[in-house]
Order: sequence, then C-alpha cells, then structure tokens
Amino acid sequence: MSEVLIVGSMALDSVKTPFGQADRTVGGAAVYAATATSLLAPVRLVGVVGGDFPREALDFLEGRGVDLAGVELVPDGKSFYWSGVYDYDMTDRETLDTQLNVFADFDPKLPESYRQSRYCFLANIQPQLQLSVLEQIEGPCFVMCDTMNLWIETEREALEQVLARVDLALLNDAEIRQLADTPNLAQAAGRVLDLGPKFVVIKKGEYGAALLSRDEHFGIPSYPLPDVVDPTGAGDSFAGGMIGLLALEDSCTTRDLRRAVALGTAAASASVEGFGLEGLKSLDVGELHRRCETLREMVQFEPIQLELT
Amino acid sequence: MSEVLIVGSMALDSVKTPFGQADRTVGGAAVYAATATSLLAPVRLVGVVGGDFPREALDFLEGRGVDLAGVELVPDGKSFYWSGVYDYDMTDRETLDTQLNVFADFDPKLPESYRQSRYCFLANIQPQLQLSVLEQIEGPCFVMCDTMNLWIETEREALEQVLARVDLALLNDAEIRQLADTPNLAQAAGRVLDLGPKFVVIKKGEYGAALLSRDEHFGIPSYPLPDVVDPTGAGDSFAGGMIGLLALEDSCTTRDLRRAVALGTAAASASVEGFGLEGLKSLDVGELHRRCETLREMVQFEPIQLELT
Repeated sequence: MSEVLIVGSMALDSVKTPFGQADRTVGGAAVYAATATSLLAPVRLVGVVGGDFPREALDFLEGRGVDLAGVELVPDGKSFYWSGVYDYDMTDRETLDTQLNVFADFDPKLPESYRQSRYCFLANIQPQLQLSVLEQIEGPCFVMCDTMNLWIETEREALEQVLARVDLALLNDAEIRQLADTPNLAQAAGRVLDLGPKFVVIKKGEYGAALLSRDEHFGIPSYPLPDVVDPTGAGDSFAGGMIGLLALEDSCTTRDLRRAVALGTAAASASVEGFGLEGLKSLDVGELHRRCETLREMVQFEPIQLELT
Repeated sequence: MSEVLIVGSMALDSVKTPFGQADRTVGGAAVYAATATSLLAPVRLVGVVGGDFPREALDFLEGRGVDLAGVELVPDGKSFYWSGVYDYDMTDRETLDTQLNVFADFDPKLPESYRQSRYCFLANIQPQLQLSVLEQIEGPCFVMCDTMNLWIETEREALEQVLARVDLALLNDAEIRQLADTPNLAQAAGRVLDLGPKFVVIKKGEYGAALLSRDEHFGIPSYPLPDVVDPTGAGDSFAGGMIGLLALEDSCTTRDLRRAVALGTAAASASVEGFGLEGLKSLDVGELHRRCETLREMVQFEPIQLELT
C-alpha cells in the first residue's frame, strides 16, 4: 500500500436539484476525492479553507486517516463557495454563484512529509498550480490530473505543460471534445495522448467511462441507479476511487487501470446518491466491492460463434 | 436457424453531414435491418416501394437471401423520401423533408408463406400497422418493436397495445425518457417493462446500449470508430443484427439476448462508417465476428479484491 497525494478545492456548496437542495454543504473536488480514496489508502491532502469550514468535516477526514498537514486554515477568511442548480435531467447544471474567497490565493505548498508520494491526484485547479505541485514532488509518482473548460479556454499553454508531465488525464466528454477540437471521442483521445499522458480517461456521466492509451480501449457503463440525488462531486469521487485502488495495490499496469476505472465508477455511483458528501460517507468497502462485482457481471457476454464462410 | 420477418419503411434518403452528402440513396428502417439480418439468417421483408426504387437495391437484397414476396411495388408511385442534415457532433439531426408517397397507404399484408415466422422485427411504423402485423402472425414468435417520438406523442394508446404484445421494445434514450416521463433511464426502463415487454433495449448512440428486464441489466459501450460518416440507420442495423443472431441460433434466453445486443452494436458500427447502406454492405461475417470479439475484450476487467474489515 502507498500514500496518495490529493491537491484541490475544499468548498462549501449550495446545490439545488428538482428533488431537493442542500445549503453550504461541505464539498470541493479534493474533499470528494479524499473521501473516496480514504476507503482504500492513506491520503495526504493539500487545500485551503476559511474559518467557516466546519470542524466536523476536518475531523471526519482525519478519522478516515487523511493527513491534513497540507491543509491551510485561514481563520479570518471564508471558504471557497459554489452554488448551482441542476436541470431535471440531472446532467446540465447552471452555476449561480462562485466566490473564490481564500481559494483565490491558493498556492499549494507540500509539507516535507508529502514530497515522496507514489500516487497523486491533481484535482481541477489552475494548471500553473498543478505545475507547481509537480515541481515539489520527488521521485517516481503516478500522477492523474483533472481540469475544466475555463482552463482549456484561458490557460491552454500551461495546461499542455501539465498534460505533458502526467501519467493520466481525466476529462469529461465535453472537455475532451473542446481540448482536442473534434466531436469524435476516439479521435479526441488520440490527440490528447499526443500531448503526453500515457492514459486518458473520459468521464461520460450517466453513460459511463472509457480508458484509452495508444494500444488500449476499455469501456464501462455507469452503475445503474434508480435515484440520482446530486451529481456534484461524481467525477472527483471517481478519480479518488481510481487512484485509491492503484495505491492500495501499488501497481498501475493497464490491467490495474481497467480495474481502477471500474472501482471509480462504483465510487461515483455512491457519491450521487446523496447531497454533498452524504452518499460517499455511507459507502463502505463491502458495498464498494459489491458494486464492482455487479459491474463485472453487468458487462459480461459469452463468445459469439459465427460460421465464417 | 429460423426465418426473420421484418416490416417497415423502404426509402430513398438524402443525407448531409459536415463530412459529405448522399442524394436519394437507398435506405429505410426495414432495408437497414434486413441487410444486417441477412448476414446471419433468412429474411422475409414486408414493405412498399415506388417505381423510382432502384432495381439493383432489390436485386442486392434478393442476392442476400431476402424474400421480397411481401414487398409491394407501386410502379406509378414514388418511394418514401426522407431528407436530413446532421450536426457537427453527428448526433443531432434535422429533418429537412419527409414525403410519405406510397408509404402513406402502407398496409402490411403478410404473404401466406410469412405467417409462421419465429422471429419478427417491427421497425418504426404507425403502431396500428404494427398491431395489424401481430394479428397476421401465427404461432409463437419472438417479436421486437421499434417506435419514434411522433407515435409516443400522438398514438400512445395503440403504442401501449403493441408494447403489451411484444417480447422486446427497442427505444433510444430520448424516446424512453419521453415514453416513461422520467429522465432516469433505470426508472424509465422499469415503467416500460410495466407495459408488457419482457425486455427493453435502450439505444444510446455513441454511448452504447443497455438491455434490461425484471432481473437483468446488461450494458455495453459502442464500438469505437475514428470516423463516423453517416449515423442514419444505425438503430435499425443494430436491431437487424440482434434479431439475426437470435434467429441464427433459434434461441432467446437472457444469455443470448446479451450476445445479440453485442452483435447489434457491432453491426451498427459498420453501418455508420459509410453513407446509406455502403457501410453495412461492406460488412461480412468475418468482420462482424471480429468486432464482437473486440467488444468482448474491451469490457473485460479482472476481479477487484478488497479487504472487507
């Protein structure tokens, strides 16, 4: 087993869906990812919070074995705040408000004890900050990065530098189409691989995920759920689950990456079953395992014998 | 091996995509389906064409072992004509023109020799006509039906009568959401199963397909293609491939249906690689088999061992 370094946002979110709402609930990419990863491997978290960030949330993470030495607390500052509303289809969302607050000055500093981490997830932050983290890591490390449309539009050069240095780029389907400037996902993945990462994972929301490399194409549907409550954090829970399995087994062959994508799919499914962290918090290793087995069974089909004339 | 009855439109299509166009090319749901099925099992086709329908197209189908006894030729009539344009993303399409022509008076009459068919695909036509076909079939028959948004809106009662009598309903994701009035596909499938069919197949285009029953959930991604040329007919090629395998093996257990959905996925992928029937025509059994094997390999992942504490 190996440690996982996770760098990204820690936030308070107000989320509204057609089926309910949550006000100022704890969220942020790094918190979702850390919660998922912590089921499998020790986490070293880097982020920044204000004095309004609930102490219980930090206690919860510590209770899960998450090292908070890299979390900066600005007592007289306010935490990053995001507010959004989801459409009836639970896919399209509209951002109502974004207040960067203490996150505006976020400058990730890795404690000495974090520098030799074998696994790292750079959640969605400004690519310059992702590069700064990469500079601070010592020794070999399997690095996954996420990003967003804003950086693809405004910080493409820095983003391409990040992509050149990571092992795996995680993008949703809209982002990879935008980054590669083509609607065809197979083509788009090829163009992103040209930028440097050995692997690309395309997150397709309710349609599942794909893992691609130069000679690999793995696809998996999403875990079927009768009720989706809040999709916020699904992609970060996915990433956290993925890197958690890699770190748990301390191995990242293509074969392991397929299994990690499956486990990420299972983790994401639990995440969307409750508002904020609720869904992920009620996930345990047994249920995670059960969902992975269900996914394995769900995709099986027996060989098709056709008479070749 | 058993015969497959296919009932539906035979058309001339004008299609434009950002990557090219085809004018008055042979198409129609029944023609796509019959072409795919004919790779695997004998087809009995029911449809209507005008004097403008190319003789070579009928010759091609006959050469593939398709029985045309049920195809009505109206020498002084014009064939069903559809014209549409696809968006850059190759998913959204706009219908520019629909001329029903001889299809307006289509009243499917099964030749005596067709009445005992063990497998039947009712392609997208008015549900009243689908019911009329069901009345004319004798003996046990595995029936799959397709439909469209127009009938969901305007002929719901007749459509529900069809669904109560078929074994498998084939719908795309937009259609099943509309029919079941919920955005959640798992919920929507449950509601459609309540209407009668033993199985529901949800076609998700580039995102693959799902097969659901009361105690079954199978999911498969689409076959990855670097170039999609013309998506017209993909769903019908999928259906034709599916029912072709069931008829070839004369078996329709859940296990077979999973394999049939995989084979349909492979057939659909070939269909979209060329304009009109071009892609399907260049597909042979060897390539179909190869694509099924690729799909099988694409979804495999090994068991995930998690220590359950």
